[in-house]
Amino acid sequence: MRHVNLQLLAKELNLSIATVSKALRDSHEISAGTKKRVFDHAKALNYMPNPYASSLRRKKSNTIAVVIPEVADSFFSQAIKRIEEVAQYKGYHVLIYLTCESFLKEQAILNEFASGRVDGVLMSLSTETSDYAHIEALNNNNIPVVFFDRVADGLQAAKVTTDDFESAYRATRHLIEKGCKAIAYLSFSECLSINHQRMQGYKQALTEHKRLTKRPAVIHCSNNPDKNFVLLKKMLGKANRPDGLIAGIEKLTTPVYLACSQLNIRIPQQLKVVSFSNLDTALILNPSLTAVTQPAFEMGKTAATLLFKSLMKRQSVKSELVVLPSTLIIRNSTA
Amino acid sequence: MRHVNLQLLAKELNLSIATVSKALRDSHEISAGTKKRVFDHAKALNYMPNPYASSLRRKKSNTIAVVIPEVADSFFSQAIKRIEEVAQYKGYHVLIYLTCESFLKEQAILNEFASGRVDGVLMSLSTETSDYAHIEALNNNNIPVVFFDRVADGLQAAKVTTDDFESAYRATRHLIEKGCKAIAYLSFSECLSINHQRMQGYKQALTEHKRLTKRPAVIHCSNNPDKNFVLLKKMLGKANRPDGLIAGIEKLTTPVYLACSQLNIRIPQQLKVVSFSNLDTALILNPSLTAVTQPAFEMGKTAATLLFKSLMKRQSVKSELVVLPSTLIIRNSTA
Repeated sequence: MRHVNLQLLAKELNLSIATVSKALRDSHEISAGTKKRVFDHAKALNYMPNPYASSLRRKKSNTIAVVIPEVADSFFSQAIKRIEEVAQYKGYHVLIYLTCESFLKEQAILNEFASGRVDGVLMSLSTETSDYAHIEALNNNNIPVVFFDRVADGLQAAKVTTDDFESAYRATRHLIEKGCKAIAYLSFSECLSINHQRMQGYKQALTEHKRLTKRPAVIHCSNNPDKNFVLLKKMLGKANRPDGLIAGIEKLTTPVYLACSQLNIRIPQQLKVVSFSNLDTALILNPSLTAVTQPAFEMGKTAATLLFKSLMKRQSVKSELVVLPSTLIIRNSTA
Repeated sequence: MRHVNLQLLAKELNLSIATVSKALRDSHEISAGTKKRVFDHAKALNYMPNPYASSLRRKKSNTIAVVIPEVADSFFSQAIKRIEEVAQYKGYHVLIYLTCESFLKEQAILNEFASGRVDGVLMSLSTETSDYAHIEALNNNNIPVVFFDRVADGLQAAKVTTDDFESAYRATRHLIEKGCKAIAYLSFSECLSINHQRMQGYKQALTEHKRLTKRPAVIHCSNNPDKNFVLLKKMLGKANRPDGLIAGIEKLTTPVYLACSQLNIRIPQQLKVVSFSNLDTALILNPSLTAVTQPAFEMGKTAATLLFKSLMKRQSVKSELVVLPSTLIIRNSTA
C-alpha cells in the first residue's frame, strides 16, 4: 500500500505543503474551492493524517472524547461512525468513553478530562444525569462540550438534537389513526429531557383526541433488561392491556416483541408498536418495525463539526442549537 | 446519593482502609474470603473507585485501551460491557478506539500508545491486518496486549478466541442434515485467521459429504454495506443460487434477508441461513435466525482478567490461549 502523506498530496495537487495542511485544518486562509480540491483528493487517496506528529507540533492532545451511555444502540454506533470520519479528516483521535448509564461514572470520566487528556468533548447524557456541575466545570476549563441527542436542558452549551416532542406526537397520532384507543408510552429515564419531550408529545396527541383514546399511561422502564422484560410481560398480560405502544428507546423493542410472542399477542392485530429506533434489522423483524428514526449520521457529523469549529477557529459555539427532524417510518408493526 | 469511598467501605466491613484497597486490587496479601466479602459489599453499595486519584498515587495511567474494528456489532458491544465491569472493579479507565476496519488506522492508534497513554491493550484485529509489527512494538515496550476474537496468528501474545473451525463445521453439518445441497460461505476478510478457520470448518464438512453436496462456494464480501448488498442480491438472483448460506459475520445477515425479500426467495423454504451473530433481535427476525453465537460476555471478561493479571501481578500472559466454545442456536431460518 502506498504511503500517502502531506508531501505526496501537495505534489499531486501542485500546491505547497503549508496550503494543503491549512486546507485540511479548514483554515480561513484557504479558499473554499482549494479546500474542496484538497479534501476530495485526500479522500480519493485515502489520506490519513498523523495525529501524533501534528499533536507534537501543536502541543495539544489532538484528541476528542465521545462520552456516551452505551454502544449497544444503533443510534450511537451510527453517530460515532460519522464523528470518527470528521475527526479523521481534521487529524484528531477519537476516544470513546462509556458511562454505562451511570451518573457517577459520567462524573468520574469528565473530572479526568480536566487534566488535559482531551481537547474537546462530544457527549450524550446518562439516563441518571440531572446535575450538570461536572459539565460546567469542563466548559469553564476551556474544554468545549457539544451535546448530541441527550442534551442538558438549561445548560449553556452547543446542542444537536432532534424534534423529540413532534416525532412522538406524530407517532401517537399515527397509532390513533390506525384505531388504537389505549396507547402506552414506555419511558426510559426520569432525568433526560429527550424522554420528557417524547412523553409530552405523546400526551399532547392523546389530549387532542381524548374522546377517541384513554388517558395517558406511562410505563417507567429501567436500564435493567431482565426487569424490563418482566415488567412489560406483566403489563401486557393484563386484561386491560394497551392496544398501542410507543417505546421511547430502541432497546425496549426486543422485550416487547418477545413478551408478545410468549403471551400469544399478535402484532399488529392485537397490539400496534412504534419504537424510537435506528436498528438496521427493523425492516426484517417479525413484523417489520414502525420506527421513529433519528438522523444519526447527520447528528454525529453536525456535532463533530461544531466541536471542531470551537477547537480550530476558537469560536464559541455555546449558543448553537441545531434541531434535526426524525422520520416516522411506517412498517408492518402498525399495519 | 450517598458517596461511597474506601473509608466508608472499610468502616462498614470493620477492616482497615489498606486491607480494603488491597482486596479491591486483588492483592495476593489478602485472603480469598476477605476479597469476596469486600467485593460483595463494594458491589452492594455500588462503589466506584476513583481511578484518577489512584493513578496519581501510583504514577500510571490506570487506563486500558480496547481497540476494536467497530461498535455496530453485537459481539463487540457485549464484550465491551464485561470489559468495562472488570476494569471498574480494578479501578481502571477504559478507552475504546475504533479502527473502522482499517489497518492504517489500527497502526496509528497503536503507535500512539507507545507514549504511555495506556497501561495495556485489549484488541481485536481489523479485517485488513496481516502485518503485526505495530503490535510487537507495543509488547516489546512493556505494554501488554491481549487479543480477543480476532487474534493475530503466529504472534506470541495472550489470546481469547472461540472454536471457529468447529462451530462453522457444526453449522455446515446442520445445513446438510436439513437437506441443503449447495451451501455457500460468506467470507468477510482475506487476512483474519478467524475467517480462515470458519471457512476451513465449512469446507471440511462439505468434503466429508461430497456425495451429498456441491463443491465449496466462497463469496468474498467487503466492509462496504452497499457493495455487499449488490453482490449478494446478484448472487441470489442467479438460477444456480445456493440453497444454504453461512454468513461468517453478523453484519451480512440484514443484506441477505433484504435481498431474499426483494427477490421473493423464502427463508427457510428456498434458502436456509445461518449467521455468526450475537444480535439480540435474532429471535424476533422474520424468520428467527439460526446463529452461531459466541460467548461474548465470557470472552470480554476472560480477556480483561488476563490483562489485569499481567498489569497487576506483573506475570507474563504471552503464552496464554483460551478457546471458548460458541453455541449453534437453531431457529426458523433453517427449519
